[in-house]
Amino acid sequence: MIVQLRAMRRKSRHCVLGMLLFLPVAAMAAQDVHDAMTSLALLAMVLFLGKASSLVVRFGQPAVLGEMLMGLVLGNLHLLGIDWFEALRSDGHLAFVAELGVIILLFQIGLESDMNAMRKVGLRAFLVAVLGVTVPFSLGVWLVGPVFFPQGTLNAHLFLGAAMTATSVGITARVFQDMGVLAHPAAQIVLGAAVIDDVLGLIILAVVSAVVTTGSISVLGVVVIAGKALLFLTGALLLGQRFARRIGWFFSRINTGVGMKFTIAVCYGLFMAYLAQVIGLASIVGAFAAGLVLDEVVFRNYDDPAMVRDIRKVLQAAPEALRVRLERIMGYHATRHLEGLLLPVGHLTIPVFFVLTGFHVDLAVLADTNLVLTALVVILVAIISKMAAGLMAGPVNKWLVGAGMVPRGEVGLIFASVGQRLGVVDGAIFAVIVIMAMATTLVTPPALAWLLRRSG
Amino acid sequence: MIVQLRAMRRKSRHCVLGMLLFLPVAAMAAQDVHDAMTSLALLAMVLFLGKASSLVVRFGQPAVLGEMLMGLVLGNLHLLGIDWFEALRSDGHLAFVAELGVIILLFQIGLESDMNAMRKVGLRAFLVAVLGVTVPFSLGVWLVGPVFFPQGTLNAHLFLGAAMTATSVGITARVFQDMGVLAHPAAQIVLGAAVIDDVLGLIILAVVSAVVTTGSISVLGVVVIAGKALLFLTGALLLGQRFARRIGWFFSRINTGVGMKFTIAVCYGLFMAYLAQVIGLASIVGAFAAGLVLDEVVFRNYDDPAMVRDIRKVLQAAPEALRVRLERIMGYHATRHLEGLLLPVGHLTIPVFFVLTGFHVDLAVLADTNLVLTALVVILVAIISKMAAGLMAGPVNKWLVGAGMVPRGEVGLIFASVGQRLGVVDGAIFAVIVIMAMATTLVTPPALAWLLRRSG
Repeated sequence: MIVQLRAMRRKSRHCVLGMLLFLPVAAMAAQDVHDAMTSLALLAMVLFLGKASSLVVRFGQPAVLGEMLMGLVLGNLHLLGIDWFEALRSDGHLAFVAELGVIILLFQIGLESDMNAMRKVGLRAFLVAVLGVTVPFSLGVWLVGPVFFPQGTLNAHLFLGAAMTATSVGITARVFQDMGVLAHPAAQIVLGAAVIDDVLGLIILAVVSAVVTTGSISVLGVVVIAGKALLFLTGALLLGQRFARRIGWFFSRINTGVGMKFTIAVCYGLFMAYLAQVIGLASIVGAFAAGLVLDEVVFRNYDDPAMVRDIRKVLQAAPEALRVRLERIMGYHATRHLEGLLLPVGHLTIPVFFVLTGFHVDLAVLADTNLVLTALVVILVAIISKMAAGLMAGPVNKWLVGAGMVPRGEVGLIFASVGQRLGVVDGAIFAVIVIMAMATTLVTPPALAWLLRRSG
Repeated sequence: MIVQLRAMRRKSRHCVLGMLLFLPVAAMAAQDVHDAMTSLALLAMVLFLGKASSLVVRFGQPAVLGEMLMGLVLGNLHLLGIDWFEALRSDGHLAFVAELGVIILLFQIGLESDMNAMRKVGLRAFLVAVLGVTVPFSLGVWLVGPVFFPQGTLNAHLFLGAAMTATSVGITARVFQDMGVLAHPAAQIVLGAAVIDDVLGLIILAVVSAVVTTGSISVLGVVVIAGKALLFLTGALLLGQRFARRIGWFFSRINTGVGMKFTIAVCYGLFMAYLAQVIGLASIVGAFAAGLVLDEVVFRNYDDPAMVRDIRKVLQAAPEALRVRLERIMGYHATRHLEGLLLPVGHLTIPVFFVLTGFHVDLAVLADTNLVLTALVVILVAIISKMAAGLMAGPVNKWLVGAGMVPRGEVGLIFASVGQRLGVVDGAIFAVIVIMAMATTLVTPPALAWLLRRSG
């Protein structure tokens, strides 16, 4: 333990050194010689510091937590009179990269989710998801909101409730993957429920956003918005499933290079994101739907048949023990896997979203001890309400399912930032949501590990 | 031939259909609801149309030509009263992506170039490079410039000459790769010379830019600039080589994930690009130097040893015939190859640079028949001057070396756009340079194929 701590101290020094390295960039940016190259240097700084913060992985925490913490530190140094990083606050190009990042992330999550697997997990996952949305939403809107934020409007409480419904598919899946229990029945249900939860949550986001924008809650309005969301999603999914292969074939006639595959996929994701926004939904809804529809079958004309044949030959000849690992390595490359192609683009853009999200958390708000106490209660409610949803999981470890639903991660933050952009969520509620999202994300990995060890 | 033409016509229809698909995006953008999402939709449109233009590959032409042609069409539709695509002209976020694209491209070219291989090709390559720079530069500045652009200043002639010195390493290397003659001695010399030519050309760009910016040519000034360029480059290369491995090891202490490797590399490229610009050089000089320094050895701590061991086992057991292909597939993945990681980012950003470059070519300038005739003469001079450089190639096919040096590609365009940004290169010279770069790029692949067939 002491050795580990000492190692951590050494690593922290690396991190600090890295920060010092980028000071000239920050200083130049602050002097406002602000061309595209300056924004690119700031981008490099954000990516670099975001990656350095992956130190938290050593503590068993997801990297996203480190990125948010790094952003939080950078964004609050001005409280200590250090304004080196204030150039980040107003840089339009970085905000643009962050927007691209969150769209790429939801597109990736959509790609990772499989519509057929969702169908199989079926009713159990659906029940867990519905309870996992309604319980936190109700508690958020009608208990936590009015009691702890009486100064907030109903609109603000709606966003608080919506943010509490979120389940971060990405984080949940990554935790199960890291622990090697993805095939575990409880994990299957959590993943299915998390996907359905995402769809429900995105509908809630659309409904809540519309309610806030139109200024009143009319039942008809809610029905129209919910209907529009469902129509867009089912349309995107059904038409997408119906035509994706044809579109894939269509463009394979021009060429079957890896660049074509990548470009078609990214353009489809961005186009659906744009379409969703034009219709009045959040852009990430479109990106998620686009990801759900696309799979490797769509792009089978882009695979190199000779390469696939070679690989099959070798796999047949390989000793049994190696086969599984090799299948992963080679299959991945043979199909020029879409998720693999998106990965570097994700590394380039997604951290910017999370660092900037942390950056916009105003710690000055925490001077208010009431707010800190509130955050603790909200965190407790957020955990308990999701654990309750686990009760619908059937003959599996219900605690594991419930705990798996707890992390709010980036999805909760997206709700909070949409609310902030609409001018509904004030600094205090935003800070509480961010703290809640971070805490639930932080608490999940050790909790899941403990539960798994306990159940053997 | 007729069958091929018919197929091409069918493909062109696909391309036109694709363009129609994106019309709503363009129309919305023109109405100027201009948030980040609109820029992202425009980005999707540019990427999509850029990729659709890779149809030119079927004619044996490099994809970059298609991207420029597509941009040229989009940027000149307003001459026909169609202003759907004018939103591209003023979009700052797209210009930002284009800047990132050209930096990524030069970083990639640097990565593909190997400093040790450069040393081996040695004197021959150096002589070819020096002649390949001095002959076109002299002809450009003191013959073509004064004779055909008497209205232009000496500064304009300097940029014309500089643009004529360029050799596109990327295009040349890709042509040789496509034709499977990368190991050919003539190809080796061309690649070595092209790399040296790039460095010389970049120094010329720095010198010419400084001369233009300071307004006069002082010998001392030239020496200082050239010295600064050499100092920066040698400093970046020597210190880089000396410390790159240590830096690589340093960050592998935080984590060895593929994201860390990617981030360190990209941040290094962007940081050096920024540093170059701060010092007064072009940002691409820094990106190129950064790429030259980095190689896989720097990141050896990031490879998965167990995976490397597995792969080695299977390769030993594989039948001889398969081994070479498998080595490429698996080795690529085992080392999580840096160039492979950068590829998707390149696909996302580089086409934007070339499409926008084509976009800014004003075809109205071509109404001037004198200008068209001038372009033809400039093309002829550009080809002949590089063929002359091939004479220094020694006991190999001199024609092949000369022809390999001909394509100006993106490097010539970079010179032209720097000159335009500095307000030195007027529309006529810019158009002639672009036409020259496109023509020399277009003419090379069939010429090389013909020369290779002729020499057996």
